[in-house]
Amino acid sequence: MRLSIDVSMHYRLNGPDTVFLALEAAGTDGQQILSHHLDLGDAILDRIAGDAGIGERIWARVPGNEMQLRYQAEVEVTRPAAHLESLSAMPLHQLPAHVAPYLRPSRYCQSDKFVAFVDKRFGHLPGGQKIAAIRNWIESELSYVPGSSDADTNVLETFAGRQGVCRDYAHLFCTMARAARIPARAVAAYGPDVTPQDFHAVAQVWLDNAWHLVDSTGMCGADGLAVIAVGRDAYDIAFMESQGPAEMVSLSVNVQRI
Amino acid sequence: MRLSIDVSMHYRLNGPDTVFLALEAAGTDGQQILSHHLDLGDAILDRIAGDAGIGERIWARVPGNEMQLRYQAEVEVTRPAAHLESLSAMPLHQLPAHVAPYLRPSRYCQSDKFVAFVDKRFGHLPGGQKIAAIRNWIESELSYVPGSSDADTNVLETFAGRQGVCRDYAHLFCTMARAARIPARAVAAYGPDVTPQDFHAVAQVWLDNAWHLVDSTGMCGADGLAVIAVGRDAYDIAFMESQGPAEMVSLSVNVQRI
Amino acid sequence: MRLSIDVSMHYRLNGPDTVFLALEAAGTDGQQILSHHLDLGDAILDRIAGDAGIGERIWARVPGNEMQLRYQAEVEVTRPAAHLESLSAMPLHQLPAHVAPYLRPSRYCQSDKFVAFVDKRFGHLPGGQKIAAIRNWIESELSYVPGSSDADTNVLETFAGRQGVCRDYAHLFCTMARAARIPARAVAAYGPDVTPQDFHAVAQVWLDNAWHLVDSTGMCGADGLAVIAVGRDAYDIAFMESQGPAEMVSLSVNVQRI
Amino acid sequence: MRLSIDVSMHYRLNGPDTVFLALEAAGTDGQQILSHHLDLGDAILDRIAGDAGIGERIWARVPGNEMQLRYQAEVEVTRPAAHLESLSAMPLHQLPAHVAPYLRPSRYCQSDKFVAFVDKRFGHLPGGQKIAAIRNWIESELSYVPGSSDADTNVLETFAGRQGVCRDYAHLFCTMARAARIPARAVAAYGPDVTPQDFHAVAQVWLDNAWHLVDSTGMCGADGLAVIAVGRDAYDIAFMESQGPAEMVSLSVNVQRI
Repeated sequence: MRLSIDVSMHYRLNGPDTVFLALEAAGTDGQQILSHHLDLGDAILDRIAGDAGIGERIWARVPGNEMQLRYQAEVEVTRPAAHLESLSAMPLHQLPAHVAPYLRPSRYCQSDKFVAFVDKRFGHLPGGQKIAAIRNWIESELSYVPGSSDADTNVLETFAGRQGVCRDYAHLFCTMARAARIPARAVAAYGPDVTPQDFHAVAQVWLDNAWHLVDSTGMCGADGLAVIAVGRDAYDIAFMESQGPAEMVSLSVNVQRI
Repeated sequence: MRLSIDVSMHYRLNGPDTVFLALEAAGTDGQQILSHHLDLGDAILDRIAGDAGIGERIWARVPGNEMQLRYQAEVEVTRPAAHLESLSAMPLHQLPAHVAPYLRPSRYCQSDKFVAFVDKRFGHLPGGQKIAAIRNWIESELSYVPGSSDADTNVLETFAGRQGVCRDYAHLFCTMARAARIPARAVAAYGPDVTPQDFHAVAQVWLDNAWHLVDSTGMCGADGLAVIAVGRDAYDIAFMESQGPAEMVSLSVNVQRI
Repeated sequence: MRLSIDVSMHYRLNGPDTVFLALEAAGTDGQQILSHHLDLGDAILDRIAGDAGIGERIWARVPGNEMQLRYQAEVEVTRPAAHLESLSAMPLHQLPAHVAPYLRPSRYCQSDKFVAFVDKRFGHLPGGQKIAAIRNWIESELSYVPGSSDADTNVLETFAGRQGVCRDYAHLFCTMARAARIPARAVAAYGPDVTPQDFHAVAQVWLDNAWHLVDSTGMCGADGLAVIAVGRDAYDIAFMESQGPAEMVSLSVNVQRI
Repeated sequence: MRLSIDVSMHYRLNGPDTVFLALEAAGTDGQQILSHHLDLGDAILDRIAGDAGIGERIWARVPGNEMQLRYQAEVEVTRPAAHLESLSAMPLHQLPAHVAPYLRPSRYCQSDKFVAFVDKRFGHLPGGQKIAAIRNWIESELSYVPGSSDADTNVLETFAGRQGVCRDYAHLFCTMARAARIPARAVAAYGPDVTPQDFHAVAQVWLDNAWHLVDSTGMCGADGLAVIAVGRDAYDIAFMESQGPAEMVSLSVNVQRI
């Protein structure tokens, strides 16, 4: 599947600021960047590799008090949709070093609190079936309610509140997978089927020696997502983080199949 | 049912301390104190009414660095077992003033976080049936695991962790009832069927214009409980609170049908 | 001091709702209601006493999906400004029953976490001086930043974040006073010096056998506040609470010296 | 400085378990492993690189329900003591990719909550002086109280409670450094001056393009620490983590200058 991505962003800042950006589709497994263009006006850009070596992050030194940004890209997504049920979890002692950190709790994902629930509800299922059951449980138990969560909402609140947006779905999925001793991480992505169009948050789970994309909201398949960045939770994959206050003037995300 | 209660308690303190005690069975609806005796050695006692006017609390000024206490009582429990299903919740505008505070969240019971879950799972049921369903859900979903919680555990953690002791069961019950807009409060009580024998925590729910005892652990019926104290949650019904450090040397609770 | 109060409120509801209101100035110590008028259109009102018997709360059954409200009153405030430094804390064993609950933690005020800090920083000071020092510390350490907190912010976050609005100042004051074993509670009030004009949250502290008003924001003196309601924290003194979603269309609070 | 390390550990497990261990001194900057010996009986060991490539972690498959372990090593520590005040913080846009994740909040370290406090208290100081001031502030404000925290204690509680053990000191340091936009991470270490002898937790801060060890408890200098593992917080550097319940039968850590 070929995607065109077109993002426009305008923020008002308190003055010159160093803004951290994670918004370019990554050249990574299962997707290829055909073309891309990023325009940040007269901001000075420094690039570093993203977490886990996926994609790039940008330190943008914005000289004035306006950040205006345009990002356009075309991406070929070649990964197939995942059939989670047929995949296997790996025994812990075979997990590679780069995967082990994604077994652990993080700022928003207190997976240590969920071990008993996950064992009781899903413990009888083998790896991929367990992950599929967790994903389906989240999709059916949670309601997608824009505005029902904020940047402070953690997974204990989401689990009790039974509602949220994509970040909350991804957090709960990562949390339950980790509680089941299966590595999982948060993923920022673009998808043409995200409604309404916006940056999207999904998850990756480590099964059969590879990462597999999972969208617990049910909006997107693994074959309909262009990965931007990965990390432990929403803090690691924020598309834009300023040092001082930043007021969003406008943001538009437009992703289409072409 | 007639109960005999015999409590012995020995704490080591850092020095003279003013200890707050809530451990005498209350003379209140559905139970009558036949005899009682409290011995705290040379501590000086000041009594005040308990929260909501139920029972008495004691400020005990302990002169040395040892608190030794013996409490013995006989109580006639005359309240019947509750049939929750046949009771009705009252419309909010008919709730009396003294009941309204028990609709609200408290230190351990963030009931504001559970509204969506309770509506989704139990919203279709009328008052008493809803309460019975909540009680049964808690009993079947939670595992009673001594040591699985501590004085810091709140109801978000209990809900995720699916285990706890009597205080956690009572907290989750109060939380879900409040989330359903039905007043509920925590209750300290003695019961002959508490295993192992200890101070017990249960709940009261306001249905059909009266408080009804509910033990979500399934250990005790309303007719097998002698109420000590009520409050918003465990902080309000602690049997013993010192100002300085206090090390428990021994504690025994012995409650029997006679 | 004589105050005129004029409040207009307009909320859009999802349908008929039972709204809980705490917005009338209370006839209580130190203030007298000279006149008052509440207009809620065709809503049906049921009144109950407020927490601790202070003022009244209203269950308003709003028939449609609009709540329009106008409240006008004149209040004579006769209480003097408090000189906290000259007041004494009471020994615990002399605290009356109705005051004891305000020693304990609540939903937003985890006072149990602050005992060591308060002892270390303020432990050497006697009662009223300790309270004055706590109040002054809060005023100087916190920055008043509208929008820096929300309905979820608890006192641990306020203490770390060092900013907030009136509710956060009141919470931190109650928390530190309780941690010092001095009863304190949250108070909703009107004040002509609240800038910008809005419902205000302050605190009361129990010294020398009486409650004394304290405004840690420094905006209002005890002689410039008309008390509406008291409670353990913001949840107990909310001016308006609906059962379903409620969207504020407009709110104006106008309090003047006359 | 040359150290001898001798660790004995005995845990009772519920049955065969895969235990994750991080307890060997790392061959890393500023220290050299002269000799080492690890004995885990008939457990099967799989090694992976530690977080950030520092040291190794071990998946130990323990066949029975007892884990007995002995670890002995000699380490030459060649790093000098750090003079934090003379070091510089780097501008954000010069931070390398592997350092950026340590700017962000983690499970126990909600650094996002501390930005205003850190700016207000330490904002006027340049990089290394700021870090030294933070370190000194923590040492003087916190009391080292064994048993005052547990595996659930987060940095908001530590900041309010003003007491803790080494992990809490390290967490608060990492939190405040991150709030000041200076990368910091948790470090497990051995030190001959840790009293009483135990596994120790300290921090590393990124100044002048390198990691520098900081012990806010004041127990150990950078030249008196043998690093075991690094990570975002205590969860990433736990010396032992089992999948099922594990009861500690005995643990001894003995570190000496030789």
